[in-house]
Amino acid sequence: MGWLRSMRRLGAITFLIVRDGWGETQAVATRPEELAPLTEAGAGVESVVAISGVVADAPQAPGGVELRELSIEVITPVREAPPVTLSKRELKASMGVLLDHAVVTNRHPRRRAAFRLASSAMAGFRATLRAHGFTEVQTPKLVATATEGGANVFEVNYFDRAAYLAQSPQFYKQVMVGVFERVFEVGPVFRAEPHDTTRHLSEYVSLDAEFGFIEDHFTVMAMLRDVMAGIFARVAEECGAELALLSARAPEVPAVIPHIHFADAQELIWRLHGVDSRGEPDLAPQEERWLGEWALAEHGSEFLYVTGYPMAKRPFYTHPDPTRPGYSNSFDLLFRGIELVTGGQRLHRYEDYLAALARANLSPEPFAWYLEVFRYGMPPEGGWAIGLERLVSQLIGAPSVKLVTLFPRDLTRLAP
Amino acid sequence: MGWLRSMRRLGAITFLIVRDGWGETQAVATRPEELAPLTEAGAGVESVVAISGVVADAPQAPGGVELRELSIEVITPVREAPPVTLSKRELKASMGVLLDHAVVTNRHPRRRAAFRLASSAMAGFRATLRAHGFTEVQTPKLVATATEGGANVFEVNYFDRAAYLAQSPQFYKQVMVGVFERVFEVGPVFRAEPHDTTRHLSEYVSLDAEFGFIEDHFTVMAMLRDVMAGIFARVAEECGAELALLSARAPEVPAVIPHIHFADAQELIWRLHGVDSRGEPDLAPQEERWLGEWALAEHGSEFLYVTGYPMAKRPFYTHPDPTRPGYSNSFDLLFRGIELVTGGQRLHRYEDYLAALARANLSPEPFAWYLEVFRYGMPPEGGWAIGLERLVSQLIGAPSVKLVTLFPRDLTRLAP
Repeated sequence: MGWLRSMRRLGAITFLIVRDGWGETQAVATRPEELAPLTEAGAGVESVVAISGVVADAPQAPGGVELRELSIEVITPVREAPPVTLSKRELKASMGVLLDHAVVTNRHPRRRAAFRLASSAMAGFRATLRAHGFTEVQTPKLVATATEGGANVFEVNYFDRAAYLAQSPQFYKQVMVGVFERVFEVGPVFRAEPHDTTRHLSEYVSLDAEFGFIEDHFTVMAMLRDVMAGIFARVAEECGAELALLSARAPEVPAVIPHIHFADAQELIWRLHGVDSRGEPDLAPQEERWLGEWALAEHGSEFLYVTGYPMAKRPFYTHPDPTRPGYSNSFDLLFRGIELVTGGQRLHRYEDYLAALARANLSPEPFAWYLEVFRYGMPPEGGWAIGLERLVSQLIGAPSVKLVTLFPRDLTRLAP
Repeated sequence: MGWLRSMRRLGAITFLIVRDGWGETQAVATRPEELAPLTEAGAGVESVVAISGVVADAPQAPGGVELRELSIEVITPVREAPPVTLSKRELKASMGVLLDHAVVTNRHPRRRAAFRLASSAMAGFRATLRAHGFTEVQTPKLVATATEGGANVFEVNYFDRAAYLAQSPQFYKQVMVGVFERVFEVGPVFRAEPHDTTRHLSEYVSLDAEFGFIEDHFTVMAMLRDVMAGIFARVAEECGAELALLSARAPEVPAVIPHIHFADAQELIWRLHGVDSRGEPDLAPQEERWLGEWALAEHGSEFLYVTGYPMAKRPFYTHPDPTRPGYSNSFDLLFRGIELVTGGQRLHRYEDYLAALARANLSPEPFAWYLEVFRYGMPPEGGWAIGLERLVSQLIGAPSVKLVTLFPRDLTRLAP
């Protein structure tokens, strides 16, 4: 049973491809009577059918076998052609058309393969963290306090007062370190990004973790290394066919991911590429690509940690580097030259939070509920957030993160 | 390492209880020098500490052992008492106070146990469905179309136009049946419930599944039976200590869960309790409790399916009972006398959707993107939604669903 993906006549022979939720099978009709149920119902491609027949060897067919001597039942006939042709190996349509008709185009094996990779990556994330003693939590998305002071946040009419959509589970996952020590969450986050790029979505899936009793951000980076290894091992194990279809390859995660300090990365770029960004508080996309190339050439690694980002560009809860003023105990993980994960050590002392909010010119009042947890004992702790769609996008080399999102949300797109 | 949960002096001996993310250990000091680091830091309960010592048998202590000859390091001192006493076996505070200070009260072992049950239930849900070939999806929570025509929906300012928060992943999970045949999702749903009860939250976690090529709602009920068994097997296996702490017991899920038709349930209530609700379109909470008692007495089952709810009270996408006008191919699953799951067979033909929307007096225009999937071939399909917090609440007999929610959202509560 499945969907009639294509129907191709070659003289007296008709080749049917039937797609189900997992793969495809070829069915071959040699007599008009076999096709009569389709013809009578006027059933074309994407019709839902049940076909029984005799399984026969067929080296050219998907899976090496095909069905013959067919008995076809039409479950749901489709009489009009889909808005985008699904029967070809490639999907030929603009991104706008693909996404406008995502309810149908998501059925195409190449799109579907990307979504299956995402599912597998989530499973690998969870399994690895559970094995490390982490507990899964689900924290609220309707919140009273914007994580970082109110930029790029969606406002909700909440029983006639203002609520916001959580930009990240940051505050709540930190609070839960006080309960379970080690927590993770897989869930939606919301960013009112006012610009349209190939890297941004206004709603995406964040793979968050947070844990206590760390030494510093290097403890977090070591744990994240195991998680990345767990994710890609799972993807490689479960999704060989999907990776092959998309000509993609799961990366090797080195036993220790190489790392470079932010300031040294700027020096390196200056030396290798003659671009002087020393003193800039962040890395440009081209600089991330150069660093990715360097890590591959120098360390044979598709992953690179950049550590110690300047405090100026990091949120108020970031732990400073106690040995190097102006720099932080934070990191980004670059994967194939793009930032995939942001993480680090957080402040854990109440007084430090009060001072940090004052420095950031933020009133402590909206954060009172959050600050309470630090009044009553928190260990040194840290964590990270991985963007799921960005991970899949980098894994398969998609031209836009929107193309690996089931139903993307951006400046103009709110449906399907 | 952990949190100093309590410190109790008995003459010259001081008993310390240290809580970490998983359990508790007793440490016993017999000399003032051992406690000096605490005393000098002024560190009271909830301070974060590292204690080393000699492990000794102690049948009365948690786990049957205790630490002696202590060496204590204070990691983060806490000098003020928490807003609610955490050191006692029971938490003595009103629900309002417990929830206002959830960032701290969630640390109490009894509250924490309920959250661990939720985590385990999610894991059991996912594992069972994966074993049945289901693929996990994450669908958008920012949507253009309210699922059921606009009641109880939160409005979002989305780049200066109106968006809504998804009341359920219903439309999207149905669409994804066309892609993967069998899908599930664990994620937040949002209901602008204008009333305050012990059963409702304005944001909760929904365990959704949907799959194609079913016979009718009984196919869905059979699959759900396996999922409930998988959830409670996982909970029983992973959370023995938590269940014991809460004096709770994981239910036996019968090989076949008994079922009764809605109309027969009303007849039964009339016969057994003399309450005549025949003709009413829904069951009252007291009626659900009676049915739960009946299922236990008659079938030895803590679960009961009520099938065939009147179409009048079910959403427009519900499949009618082809043999019994006015009734539907839908069901509720009662667990210990309360509705825990709602599910059923959905319409799958495009023409049926157009007719159903017309009957419900809904314009098809806002649903155009959703209807597109039915124009291009959908099999008979169905699914369900389980409320995670309600499941945990019924499992442990909590007086309100808010008490088993990490950070509940209701009419007045938006923080913590």
